[in-house]
Amino acid sequence: MQRRFPTRNTLAIIGAAFFLATSFTSLSAPLRQLEQNNQASATAKIDRIEPSSWWVGMQSPALQLMVYGKHLDGLEARIQHPGVSLVKSSRPENAHYLFLDLLISPDAAVGNVEIEWLRDNKVQFKSNFTLNARRPGSPQRLGFTPADAIYLVVPDRFANGDTRNDTIAGMRDPAQRNVPGGRHGGDLQGLTQHLDYIAGLGFTMLWPTPLVENNQAINSYHGYAATDFYRVDQRFGSNEDYRQLVTQAKKLGMGVIHDVVLNHIGSQHWWMQDLPSHDWLNQHPTYVETNHVRATVQDPHASIEDRNKFADGWFVQTMPDLNQKNPYLANYLIQNAIWWIEYADLSGLRVDTYSYSNKEFLAQWSKRITDEYPLINLVGEEWSMNPAIVAYWQKDKVNQDGYRSYMPSMMDFSVYENLHTSLVGGKDGKADIGKLYLAATDDFQYAHPENLTIFEGNHDTPRLFSALNRDPALLKMAMIYLATMRGIPQMFYGTEILMTSPKKRDDGKVRGDFPGGWSGDRVNAFSGENLSKQSKSTQDFVRNLFNWRKAEKAIHAGKFLHFLPQDDCYVYFRTSDKKTIMVVMNRKEKSQSLNTSRFTEVLKGFSKARDVLSGSTQDIRQQIQIEGKTAHIFELQ
Amino acid sequence: MQRRFPTRNTLAIIGAAFFLATSFTSLSAPLRQLEQNNQASATAKIDRIEPSSWWVGMQSPALQLMVYGKHLDGLEARIQHPGVSLVKSSRPENAHYLFLDLLISPDAAVGNVEIEWLRDNKVQFKSNFTLNARRPGSPQRLGFTPADAIYLVVPDRFANGDTRNDTIAGMRDPAQRNVPGGRHGGDLQGLTQHLDYIAGLGFTMLWPTPLVENNQAINSYHGYAATDFYRVDQRFGSNEDYRQLVTQAKKLGMGVIHDVVLNHIGSQHWWMQDLPSHDWLNQHPTYVETNHVRATVQDPHASIEDRNKFADGWFVQTMPDLNQKNPYLANYLIQNAIWWIEYADLSGLRVDTYSYSNKEFLAQWSKRITDEYPLINLVGEEWSMNPAIVAYWQKDKVNQDGYRSYMPSMMDFSVYENLHTSLVGGKDGKADIGKLYLAATDDFQYAHPENLTIFEGNHDTPRLFSALNRDPALLKMAMIYLATMRGIPQMFYGTEILMTSPKKRDDGKVRGDFPGGWSGDRVNAFSGENLSKQSKSTQDFVRNLFNWRKAEKAIHAGKFLHFLPQDDCYVYFRTSDKKTIMVVMNRKEKSQSLNTSRFTEVLKGFSKARDVLSGSTQDIRQQIQIEGKTAHIFELQ
Repeated sequence: MQRRFPTRNTLAIIGAAFFLATSFTSLSAPLRQLEQNNQASATAKIDRIEPSSWWVGMQSPALQLMVYGKHLDGLEARIQHPGVSLVKSSRPENAHYLFLDLLISPDAAVGNVEIEWLRDNKVQFKSNFTLNARRPGSPQRLGFTPADAIYLVVPDRFANGDTRNDTIAGMRDPAQRNVPGGRHGGDLQGLTQHLDYIAGLGFTMLWPTPLVENNQAINSYHGYAATDFYRVDQRFGSNEDYRQLVTQAKKLGMGVIHDVVLNHIGSQHWWMQDLPSHDWLNQHPTYVETNHVRATVQDPHASIEDRNKFADGWFVQTMPDLNQKNPYLANYLIQNAIWWIEYADLSGLRVDTYSYSNKEFLAQWSKRITDEYPLINLVGEEWSMNPAIVAYWQKDKVNQDGYRSYMPSMMDFSVYENLHTSLVGGKDGKADIGKLYLAATDDFQYAHPENLTIFEGNHDTPRLFSALNRDPALLKMAMIYLATMRGIPQMFYGTEILMTSPKKRDDGKVRGDFPGGWSGDRVNAFSGENLSKQSKSTQDFVRNLFNWRKAEKAIHAGKFLHFLPQDDCYVYFRTSDKKTIMVVMNRKEKSQSLNTSRFTEVLKGFSKARDVLSGSTQDIRQQIQIEGKTAHIFELQ
Repeated sequence: MQRRFPTRNTLAIIGAAFFLATSFTSLSAPLRQLEQNNQASATAKIDRIEPSSWWVGMQSPALQLMVYGKHLDGLEARIQHPGVSLVKSSRPENAHYLFLDLLISPDAAVGNVEIEWLRDNKVQFKSNFTLNARRPGSPQRLGFTPADAIYLVVPDRFANGDTRNDTIAGMRDPAQRNVPGGRHGGDLQGLTQHLDYIAGLGFTMLWPTPLVENNQAINSYHGYAATDFYRVDQRFGSNEDYRQLVTQAKKLGMGVIHDVVLNHIGSQHWWMQDLPSHDWLNQHPTYVETNHVRATVQDPHASIEDRNKFADGWFVQTMPDLNQKNPYLANYLIQNAIWWIEYADLSGLRVDTYSYSNKEFLAQWSKRITDEYPLINLVGEEWSMNPAIVAYWQKDKVNQDGYRSYMPSMMDFSVYENLHTSLVGGKDGKADIGKLYLAATDDFQYAHPENLTIFEGNHDTPRLFSALNRDPALLKMAMIYLATMRGIPQMFYGTEILMTSPKKRDDGKVRGDFPGGWSGDRVNAFSGENLSKQSKSTQDFVRNLFNWRKAEKAIHAGKFLHFLPQDDCYVYFRTSDKKTIMVVMNRKEKSQSLNTSRFTEVLKGFSKARDVLSGSTQDIRQQIQIEGKTAHIFELQ
C-alpha cells in the first residue's frame, strides 16, 4: 500500500457511510435494545454467513461464523451435523450480528451443514454452510522460497481478457481507461491468458495486487479498499476464476501470492452501513490520520498519543481503520486469510501496511496461519529503510521488548532503497556502490535475512527504468543484483520492457497498462509486436536471467559472501557445495581489471570464470576483466 | 581515538622498531634457541615484573605476572609467601619472557613477596613483588551512572601545573607549545589545581585522555600510543600524582574515568624491541591498515579478508596492532585495567577504538572486570552512527549470532550526530529537529539505553560551537538536550567557554589550550579574567545547567517520554514518582505558542511550568509560550 494517497478531499464521497458508522453509537445501549425488541416480531432474515464454507481436518478445529441479518433477537442457532458442535453463540453490541463458535472434528462429515434457527425452541428457518474436504497435501503446502522469483502485477493494468466485465451494472467506478486512477479493465481472464508469458520470463510466483471486491467510488482499481473480504471483485471475475488462475499457474510451475489488507477496509464495505460494534473500527471524534511513524511501535519512549495515532489513525478518509483488538474482528481476519489459502490453493500471502495494525493481533495472525501451514510463506510490507524496524517483525527475532512475530518474510525496503542510491545516488545524485555492501552488512539484525523479499520496485514506487535515469545498463545491473543477492526477488510487471513513470510519486502512471493486454494495443509486449528494440533486448535479458536463476541452487540456498567494494566495484559470491557463483558489479563508467588475489579465500582452486549470460569464459588466476557500468554473473571453474 | 590520523608518512620514524618486531621471527626457532643457550651462562637479570603489585582479596585469586629479563634460561621461580602459590611457569616464544601464574588466597599476607630465582635448585637472586590490602568497599565501588555528568579533558591541553616536567631529558617529543600536534605542557598538577573549577561547573566525573607513558617521537601528547602500560607519562607527573588527582577529585564529589587502549600500542613501546612472541602483534608481510569497516564484525556475509583487515590491520604505522588472541596478552591487558582501577581508585574505564580489538577478548575483558567490580561502569567507543552496531556491544543485548558482551555503556554516536544535524543540518545544511526524535526511537535496539554515554563532542570531533556555526543560542539548545536526555552526559572541556576549531578535522586545534591553564595566558577562564562576555555567559549557563542536573532524580532515573515534533518543536518529559520535567526545544527562529492538549497524558493535573533556569513560571493549561531558537526545562506544578 502506498504510504499516502494523492491528496483528495474524499470526505464528501464517504460522508453518508461514515456518518452512519459513527452515529450508530450515539444511541444509548438501552434505547437501542428497546428499538431492537420492537422489531423482534418482524421476519428474521440471514443475509450473510462468513465464511460460508470451511474444511474438515484443519489443524485447528475451531471456527467462528459471523452471521448477519435483521431481526435476529431471540433466535437461537442449532447445528446437528456429525462432527460439528456449536460451542457458543455470542452477540456483539449490534444485535444484527451473531458469532457462532463451532468445533469441527477431524472426522466431521463433508457436505452441507444445516444451521437451524429456533425461537422458543421451534425451528423458524434454516441456513446453509458447507464443509469441504481438503486438497491432499494442503497443510504441508510449500510457500514461496528463495528458490522462487515473484512477478508483481496490478490486475486492472495487465490484460483485459473479458471486456464484458469492465463495467458492472450497479457497481461504482465504471471503467475509464483514459483516467490514470480509473479502472482500465484488466482482469483474471487476461492474467490467466498470459500466464505463459510470465512463466516464460522465468518467474515462479505471481503476486497480484488485491482481487477482492472494492466497490468504491474512485481508485477502486488498486484493490486496497475492500468492500467484501470473501468475494473477488466482479470486474476481475469470480472467485472461481481466481481459483482457475491458480490452477493454471500451477500447471506452469507458478504459485500465487494473495495480497491481504488487515489495517483498513473501503468506506463502502458492507459493514459500514451497520457496524457490528462501535469498536469494530478505530473511531475518533473527528477524522484522525495516521502519523505514519512506524517507529512508535518499537520506541520505548513513545507517547500514547503518537503510538495510538500511528496504529489507530486512518490511512485516508476513504479507508476506515479496523480495530483488530476486537477479538471477533481478529478472528474474522485470520479465518479469512486461511479461507483464501485453502480455497484458492495459495502459495503465500503478502500483507499490506503491515505495522499499521495492532501488533498483538499481527503476532496472533501470523502464528495461527503458520500453525495451519508450517511451510507457507507470508511477507509483510513495512516501508522503513531501518533494518532494525523491519527485523523486529520477522519470525525468530529476539526483540528487547519480548515481542514475538511469526512472519517468515518481510519486504526489504533497505535493499530496495540502497539498490537505487548505489546506482544513481540519492538526493545528492552521487552513485555509490558501497551502499549495496553496507545494506547487506545490516543482515546481522535479521533472524532470517535469506528469507527477506527483495525488490526493484513495486506499485507504489517510481518505475525502475525511470528511477535509474532511463539507463538500460544500470537497469541490467540492478536486475542482476536482484537475481543473485540473498532473499526472494520480486519484480514489478513491465520492468522487463522498460515501462516508465514520473520519478515523483504518481500511482496511476506507475501502474500503467501493459502493452498488448488490450485488444487494439499498437505495441504488444507478449508477442513482441512493435516493441522497441531496447525493450525487447531488456525483456530477453530478464528472461535469460530468471530462467538461469530457476535452476541455480547456489543462488537459492548458497552462502552469500561479499567483499568491501573497491574502485566502485562490488564483488560477491554465492556458494553451495557444488558450485561457486561470483558476481561483479562495476559502477565505474570505464572497464576495469580487478586483481583477484584479494578474493583468494573463495577463488582458490578455480582458474576460469564463465559468464553465465554471455557464455564467454576468462582466466581469473591473476585478474578479471569487467567492462564499465556492467554486472556479470560468473560460474567458477 | 580518532578514526584516521592526518596522513603523515611516519614509516621512517618507526622503521627501526618495526623492523625488529618483524625480523624477530625471521630467525628460525631452533636457531634462536641455540643463540639463547649460548647466552645462558651470562648473568641473569630481571628488568620488569608486571604488574609489580597486586591486592589480597580480589574476586579472582588468579594473577599472571609477566617477567622480562635477559638470560633467564634454566632459571626457575620459587615463591614462599603465606597464601601465595606459584601454580605454573610458562615461557613464550621469546625466552626473555616468563609468565608466572599465581594463586593468591584471601588470607595471603600483605607486604613484600619475594620471588626466588633458582638454577640447579640454588637461589641465584631474588625479585620483589608487593601485595597490598584493598581499600574498604573497593569491590562494590559505584561507577559513573546517569546521575553523573562527565567532563572530558586532554591533560596536555588543560593546565600546566608544573613547568619543570614539560620536557623530560631522555624522552622524545619535547614541549613545543606553538605546534598544534606538540606537547603543550599540561599535566596532572594543573588538572588537580583546577578540579574545583570542574566540580563547580556541576560535573561529577572527570575523564582525562590517556595518561600512561607515550614516549613517541611525535603526537605523544594525546596518549593513545602507550609505551608503558603501568606508568604515567613523566610529562604528566607520576603514578602517585594520578592517585592524588583521584583523591582530590573525590573530595569534591568527582570520580575519575581512566582511558584505556586495548587495540594498539605506540611503536616505541618497550615490547617493540623484543616482542614476547611473533603473535603478540597482528603482523603482516607488508604494512596493512585497518579498513575501518566496523560492520565486518557483525556482518554474517563478511569475507575473512575484510574481517581480518578490520580487526588485525593497523590503525596507523606508529601504532602496532595488538593480537589479543594471544592469551598472555589478553591476561596482561585485563590485569592492567584492574590494576589501575584498584591502584588509582577509579570510577570507570573508557575504551578507545573498542570494536577494533578481538571480539572474544573484548567479551572476556569486560566480563572479568565487571566480575571484579559489579557496579563499575565501562564505556566503549564505537564510532558508528548505526545504533544496531553500537547496541551489539552492550551488555544484555541478545544478538542473533549469540555474541555476549559485558560492557555496561557505549558511546552514543548516533545521538551525537543527530544532535548536530538536528540543529544545523548535515551536508544539506537543513536543520531538522525531527532527527533528535528519530534517534531516540532507535533505543528499542539497546538493552540499556539509559546507560549509554551521550556527548556533544570529544577530542576527535569539531568543537561544538564551531559545528553549530558559532551560534550561542544553538549551543545552549544542544547543552540542554545533553543535560536532560536519557543517558550519561559527557562534555568536552572548553565547550563551556565556546572554544572553537576548524569544522574539518584538525586534532591539534580541536584540542586547544584551555585559557588560564598556562601562566601568562591573557585570558583566564578559571578566574573569568579577560573572558569574553559571550563565553562567560555560556560558562554561567553550563554551570547553572549541570548544577541543577546534579540533584534532579527525575533526570537521573526518570522515565523518558517524547512526542513527535511538530512545527520544529520537540517536546519530551522526564518523570519520576515525585517530579515531572518537561523539555521544549523550539528550532524555529520565531517564538511559538504550543497547544498543550496534545500532551495531556503527561500534563493532566499540572497547571504551571516553572523554567528551572530562569525561574519564571507560566500557565500551561491551554498553551505554552516558547521563544525562537531556545530550549527550556520546565518543572511542572
